[in-house]
Amino acid sequence: MSRILYDLTGAHDLRFSPNCWRSRLALAHKELEVECEPCRFTEKDKIAFSGGKTVPVLRDGDTVINDSWDIACYLEETYPGNPSLFGGPVGKGMANHLNWWANAVLHPAIVQTVLIDIYDSLTPEDQAYFRESREKRFGKPLEDVAGDQEARLATTRQTLAPTNLTLERQKWICGDAPAYGDYLIFSALQWARAVSPVTIVETGTAIYNWNERMLDLFEGLGRMIEPKAA
Amino acid sequence: MSRILYDLTGAHDLRFSPNCWRSRLALAHKELEVECEPCRFTEKDKIAFSGGKTVPVLRDGDTVINDSWDIACYLEETYPGNPSLFGGPVGKGMANHLNWWANAVLHPAIVQTVLIDIYDSLTPEDQAYFRESREKRFGKPLEDVAGDQEARLATTRQTLAPTNLTLERQKWICGDAPAYGDYLIFSALQWARAVSPVTIVETGTAIYNWNERMLDLFEGLGRMIEPKAA
Repeated sequence: MSRILYDLTGAHDLRFSPNCWRSRLALAHKELEVECEPCRFTEKDKIAFSGGKTVPVLRDGDTVINDSWDIACYLEETYPGNPSLFGGPVGKGMANHLNWWANAVLHPAIVQTVLIDIYDSLTPEDQAYFRESREKRFGKPLEDVAGDQEARLATTRQTLAPTNLTLERQKWICGDAPAYGDYLIFSALQWARAVSPVTIVETGTAIYNWNERMLDLFEGLGRMIEPKAA
Repeated sequence: MSRILYDLTGAHDLRFSPNCWRSRLALAHKELEVECEPCRFTEKDKIAFSGGKTVPVLRDGDTVINDSWDIACYLEETYPGNPSLFGGPVGKGMANHLNWWANAVLHPAIVQTVLIDIYDSLTPEDQAYFRESREKRFGKPLEDVAGDQEARLATTRQTLAPTNLTLERQKWICGDAPAYGDYLIFSALQWARAVSPVTIVETGTAIYNWNERMLDLFEGLGRMIEPKAA
């Protein structure tokens, strides 16, 4: 196959990266087959050809795209006859806003909630890389960044309160059917689901029910991530 | 004219309500003329006919609609030939998500930043109503809710960080042209602009430049709110 997605992996081939989930779901939504090539934090040589240092990277024939947002835009432009990720330019504009909200607000809330769980999900070499690079980024030990998990969890749930309010009123974030806005938030939840026994979405809430529907999409693609036992 | 928007007003006919601004801008976007009927907090008798107790209320011929979101949906459905507020169902779904984010996150951040300024912008009778109803809602004196304005302002700016990141990459929140997603965030900023000398968006930032473009729309409609002198 000439379409390959380079996808972050942890120990036991655990695909936990939210940014890679975005691209995986975007490809499924566009009904495009893809081969996923696992790539650990310390296997950056595998993606050196892309000119970047982070996954996801998509190689589609002769075209190489870095960055989940650019991949979504590329797929939307290149395959206009397939189901739309954005539903038009207004939806694309607002999806980018949601993308930046996820990057700047939701992901930091989740990473602080499950930081030690992420560390625990990596191979020993990746653990060393992760500790060094993240402690440099945050300016303190991982354990200090993580802090009180219960408090972090409360913040993450509060961050998702508007999403829950929306889903009490409509079936999907993108309205009548799932689209890229749904994938952005679901991908962040897949990250936590993959690495941590912590339950971010509480049973019985609108966002929980939506998350279950999301897990069922594309023949249960998201369920390849099994909930982690506490 | 048979189209009337009941619009919250303060002392000196100051139109500061973010929810009313949403409807005002939605009507302008749909190129629909409207008469705005000012309505103070203590003039609820003026909107009793609507069955609700809050503005905006739109009377369009024989149809009466409460709530800014329902007004936007009504306008989009009733005038499909006029410029679209949502750009289709995906855009509408994501606009509702942004609507709930504004209601649950952005408005609370702004109200805490400019709470005393709002109080100061009301007529004496409305001040009494506002203090009583808001102190009941918050469970403490207005002055305690407001707290440290500098700290509140920092929180509000942080809340808008994803919007600024987006606007560093695209001209409008809704992409190539303004639509309802832009009005949602601009309306919240109009609220602060109307009542407070505090500057939420800092000169030279992408969100500041966008806000200036927003103020220019519809023959400078937003500029009827003059910046408040410090």
